Amino acid sequence: MAEPLAPGATIGILGGGQLGRMLAVAAARLGLKAHIFEPGADCPAAQVAHRTTTAPYEDAAALTAFARAVAVVTYEFENVPTAALDLIEAHVPIRPNRRALAISQDRLSEKRFLQDLGLTTAPFAAVDGLDDLQAGLDAIGTPAILKTRRFGYDGKGQVHLATAAEPATALAGLDGAPAILEGVVGFTREASVIAARGLDGQVAAFDPGENEHRQGILRTTTVPARLTKPQATDAVLLAGKILNALDYVGVIGVELFVTAQGLVVNEFAPRVHNSGHWTQNGCAVDQFEQHIRAIAGWPLGDGARHSDVTMENLIGDDIDRVPDLARAPDTALHLYGKAETRAGRKMGHVNRILGPAR
Amino acid sequence: MAEPLAPGATIGILGGGQLGRMLAVAAARLGLKAHIFEPGADCPAAQVAHRTTTAPYEDAAALTAFARAVAVVTYEFENVPTAALDLIEAHVPIRPNRRALAISQDRLSEKRFLQDLGLTTAPFAAVDGLDDLQAGLDAIGTPAILKTRRFGYDGKGQVHLATAAEPATALAGLDGAPAILEGVVGFTREASVIAARGLDGQVAAFDPGENEHRQGILRTTTVPARLTKPQATDAVLLAGKILNALDYVGVIGVELFVTAQGLVVNEFAPRVHNSGHWTQNGCAVDQFEQHIRAIAGWPLGDGARHSDVTMENLIGDDIDRVPDLARAPDTALHLYGKAETRAGRKMGHVNRILGPAR
Repeated sequence: MAEPLAPGATIGILGGGQLGRMLAVAAARLGLKAHIFEPGADCPAAQVAHRTTTAPYEDAAALTAFARAVAVVTYEFENVPTAALDLIEAHVPIRPNRRALAISQDRLSEKRFLQDLGLTTAPFAAVDGLDDLQAGLDAIGTPAILKTRRFGYDGKGQVHLATAAEPATALAGLDGAPAILEGVVGFTREASVIAARGLDGQVAAFDPGENEHRQGILRTTTVPARLTKPQATDAVLLAGKILNALDYVGVIGVELFVTAQGLVVNEFAPRVHNSGHWTQNGCAVDQFEQHIRAIAGWPLGDGARHSDVTMENLIGDDIDRVPDLARAPDTALHLYGKAETRAGRKMGHVNRILGPAR
Repeated sequence: MAEPLAPGATIGILGGGQLGRMLAVAAARLGLKAHIFEPGADCPAAQVAHRTTTAPYEDAAALTAFARAVAVVTYEFENVPTAALDLIEAHVPIRPNRRALAISQDRLSEKRFLQDLGLTTAPFAAVDGLDDLQAGLDAIGTPAILKTRRFGYDGKGQVHLATAAEPATALAGLDGAPAILEGVVGFTREASVIAARGLDGQVAAFDPGENEHRQGILRTTTVPARLTKPQATDAVLLAGKILNALDYVGVIGVELFVTAQGLVVNEFAPRVHNSGHWTQNGCAVDQFEQHIRAIAGWPLGDGARHSDVTMENLIGDDIDRVPDLARAPDTALHLYGKAETRAGRKMGHVNRILGPAR
């Protein structure tokens, strides 16, 4: 195993949104510096990072200079172009590794990977055309969801099929992109596990959170989730199974459906995850620091929770509630420094401390 | 009252050490930007601040440009040159105000101010020469401490007098600087209160912490302090008295001696204070955010504590303990990103979460 990064070393982060921003702050807390690579100007992470490179992912010279200036590279989003990763990896390790990224970038690979691990997923079928879709609908039934295999997030790139009628229309909605048909899973609640694996293979998980989505976007996460003890144990174990199978280093977010038949894995994100923001006010070591610890080769925090927390996202005009939220007791504000408010845009979040951990 | 600063506004901070660094991070959490003014290169705060001006306090052009680029100016240390403050105040408010700064810069003014408020201090006498010192020793007795009126911190600029012999030698140790003789207060423990006052006059205090010093430097703060209920109430009330008397805006740190006769005020710092670092892992709103809220005209947090905490400073070679501390449960690391370790230098601190607030 490589030596842990010494204080003063620089972490490279691809992406300068709110996740990159909170990763940069966590790195600083450990005496490490953050260098952001982000195509967009005035990104949230630049406000707290030691250095920022503003360049497109196609700028080979900028990417190379970035890779040479940092000790390790991580990312805040899944859709980093492959060519950019190739350039970076010639100079410096990428953590979590390329395989984790490649699998999670493609819903079909992800489902197959999970299935091969013996984990339960929604029924699914690859869809490369109308014939596939028809066959998938015959096998899976409706309701079902047709999703692009790549580049979907927050409910984008998805078509709901309440019935098997008009499959061609559904397919047209995806502009011919390679797709996957997924059966809709009936669930009692949605949960997620934020877990981490260190460079030495150590695994640590935070307690599962219970998620509430609205229009495909996460609204709240509450910890602890209302799970039975076996369900909570299963959630943590399956996250560990995924981490080990991928020889993963860093934090992963695994989204779950809780059903009468057990836990169904919806998807995983090879990065810090919105449903783990509660850890900032519930744990001594939060998910951002946990990720930095892992990719820097440091020991992981144990994931212990001191307080129960509800995290609520501030989306679009929710930002207008900040003056009231600033007055609320036991409430921690986390705003992202985004200059422009847009509908559906994540502007910040609040963590409400509910009381000592139960 | 002025409008609260809107997200995106910039806070100017004089001083780029660890306090400036943690203030910058707190500002970012509220969606505000931090602009550091610091003479030294590669300062800790620059690693997390939106902008940094590296210039001496005598550089009028740099100070003016800085003042014009920010919405309000605060400071992380007491000894900002007066001329620099004059230049800044021509353009932008300074919070906490000049009077608070002037009083706390001078141990004699500070003691007289506290005495005028009816608060108990150590017995003291102004010392401008040998005659004053002799008269002071006659009145106060020994043991006593001869301190420079200005520019002392962490035990520097102080001479302990165990007996009244050789006063000339003691005075020579201060190089002729204006001084104050203070009687030594017998105390059972040392405590401090971190309190804040908003732009609207609202006052909020964190629970008092119990401090342990070694060689004049703070080693640990533990919350709650072992105080009687009346003592804890007195501590908070006297902090409020000081804040109101100064028409103060921001966080103040008030150091106290706990004696059989009641609380004796040692000194106050018109800024966030080392003995308030525990709030980072004990409260939803920590002292750094509380200070930013106050100077930005935002509502204050209520100071409520969710967990009991012991803060321990990492001084000099203590930094070598980081690999072990990173493995310790319920322990939050806060490192300052200082490139060089020196004896007596504050390199970071750890907050140990002891359990739910009692």
